[in-house]
Amino acid sequence: MKVNGIPTRTIRSIDGGRAVEIIDQTLLPYRFERRTLTDWRDCVEAIAEMRVRGAPLIGITGAWAVALAVREDSSNAALLKAAEVIAHARPTAVNLSWAVQRMLASLLPRDPGMRVEAAVKLAEAMTQEDVATCRAIGEVGVGVIAELYTRLRRPVNILTHCNAGWLATVDYGTALAPIYAAFERGIPVHVWVDETRPRNQGLLTAWELGQHGVPHTIIADNAGGELMQQGEVDIVIVGADRITRRGDVANKIGTYLKALAAKDNDIPFYAAAPYSTIDWKMVDGKREIPIENRASSELLTVRGIDSSGKVSVVQIAPLEEAAANPAFDVTHNRFVTGIITERGVFTPTALAAAYQDLSA
Amino acid sequence: MKVNGIPTRTIRSIDGGRAVEIIDQTLLPYRFERRTLTDWRDCVEAIAEMRVRGAPLIGITGAWAVALAVREDSSNAALLKAAEVIAHARPTAVNLSWAVQRMLASLLPRDPGMRVEAAVKLAEAMTQEDVATCRAIGEVGVGVIAELYTRLRRPVNILTHCNAGWLATVDYGTALAPIYAAFERGIPVHVWVDETRPRNQGLLTAWELGQHGVPHTIIADNAGGELMQQGEVDIVIVGADRITRRGDVANKIGTYLKALAAKDNDIPFYAAAPYSTIDWKMVDGKREIPIENRASSELLTVRGIDSSGKVSVVQIAPLEEAAANPAFDVTHNRFVTGIITERGVFTPTALAAAYQDLSA
Repeated sequence: MKVNGIPTRTIRSIDGGRAVEIIDQTLLPYRFERRTLTDWRDCVEAIAEMRVRGAPLIGITGAWAVALAVREDSSNAALLKAAEVIAHARPTAVNLSWAVQRMLASLLPRDPGMRVEAAVKLAEAMTQEDVATCRAIGEVGVGVIAELYTRLRRPVNILTHCNAGWLATVDYGTALAPIYAAFERGIPVHVWVDETRPRNQGLLTAWELGQHGVPHTIIADNAGGELMQQGEVDIVIVGADRITRRGDVANKIGTYLKALAAKDNDIPFYAAAPYSTIDWKMVDGKREIPIENRASSELLTVRGIDSSGKVSVVQIAPLEEAAANPAFDVTHNRFVTGIITERGVFTPTALAAAYQDLSA
Repeated sequence: MKVNGIPTRTIRSIDGGRAVEIIDQTLLPYRFERRTLTDWRDCVEAIAEMRVRGAPLIGITGAWAVALAVREDSSNAALLKAAEVIAHARPTAVNLSWAVQRMLASLLPRDPGMRVEAAVKLAEAMTQEDVATCRAIGEVGVGVIAELYTRLRRPVNILTHCNAGWLATVDYGTALAPIYAAFERGIPVHVWVDETRPRNQGLLTAWELGQHGVPHTIIADNAGGELMQQGEVDIVIVGADRITRRGDVANKIGTYLKALAAKDNDIPFYAAAPYSTIDWKMVDGKREIPIENRASSELLTVRGIDSSGKVSVVQIAPLEEAAANPAFDVTHNRFVTGIITERGVFTPTALAAAYQDLSA
């Protein structure tokens, strides 16, 4: 998507795969700065410090980290050692270990002398795959928005939570992919962007929508219900961290509250995610999906620009205050209108049917 | 309630009514500082700048402002002129104009020479009335918590939103009054405190609960639904800005989302407010209650303590970002278990019956 009018991706290889260039997302939305990573350890640091974030992007960065590690030392011992460190750069991202494993599976059978070229090729292929998946999610999901526009004949008001935009992937995003696709086709859209406390990822969403020229308005997480009651929301589209086979959706904390309000106001509620997000082993999300509890400091400190124009952190309550910080919640399938994936839109019932096919 | 172990009220007259002392709430929860107001214009400034806040407290401060104005010049002309300014110190607080009107109605018929003493007497009486009302709300509401405790035999987990504590009144508060009453009686309670973006009044709630020794935990507004799904919430108690005669509740933005989640998880949801909060002229809250939209800067800036220990404001997104900031929402009576008032607990159905009596 565009930054300052220029098509941009969150990560790209440069110098024939000798380095990767990322956007330092810790500086967003305050400063747009690229960062060149030439050492696999820099990639690990970038993942751990959340310079890159979003499960898909973390995975791709991990793949490039392996490629850089192979270039440094292509022996089995070095490769396995580096892979171990890379895979653990952050604890929860399943995509990260998946990406590292995929690189290892391809590289280990090869002669060490052939590994550098193969690693660059595979990391590049995985990067392109991510782009293709997200673009396909957009192409599938735009149908839902187009249908609303046909009926409403006025700008479609879409509410989203957190950042499931291109910043969380290589390009296009997941929840935002259908919105970008609608925008490209000239369907008028307007996005209500939940601030998404405690980490305020909504500010990233507002930034990327703004850079691409998509009309949007930031709101407090508290405001969505009232806007729905006032008829100001036509559809909710969020991302997903995990989806069970009956269509329960685990996503950023607060998603469930928006799903409840959508239901109460007869507003369609969609989760958009790669098909691989569906965890066929799980049925009852509330019971089975583990919810990560994060540090209370995330809630008690807020980052912004201070009066001197510098990025600064303020503490909104004494750090000795008790604060609980569950990072995700689970939305029961009865609140989910559909799951938008690169393979099509599935109702929770259709997911169950797909599972029958899988297990048949 | 207590501050540093000492029973404290948000406002009190000193020097025989020649001045009033308030707590400067703009410094909370970072600094506890009293402020002496000797001129009615200082009272207006304190209301406008939100040094005092919460509808009941604003009303009482307005009454004291009139008393100070009368002391300066007890003529009809001066009194009416000052009253006009005081009543408009903030636009939305119905209590403010109600309190000023009540003072005027008592003072204007009197001889100017007798007005100073009468004004102090009435302002003092109104202050005591507020305390008595809030204490009664606590005495009524504690029954609901005691009943839960009898059933659960473990600490009762109460979720609240915004600040409807003693800081918003003269003492005891509204939503927090039953909690303080339970605490005084030795019923073990634990309060989940919603941060309450955009103005973070939850931090005031956490501060006053902490000062009084009531166990509590701050959470993001997004977290309440997940906690309810995990069985961590036994009851929700919030304040109310207006209640219609069928029991629809207007309260701080985000209240509706918590009511939805409470319903979905079979958790009782109560609003606690003075009986005078019931607007018998209104039925359908969603259609009839006007919702105030406030400045977007409230959402885009956050106050806290910076690294040098000073109270500081950071801007979390460019001020040119569009932001919408509705300040209240309306919860339909079907989500309301009961309304706790100083006259008793009313179900929405019981309110309707009370209206029949009123209009009979």
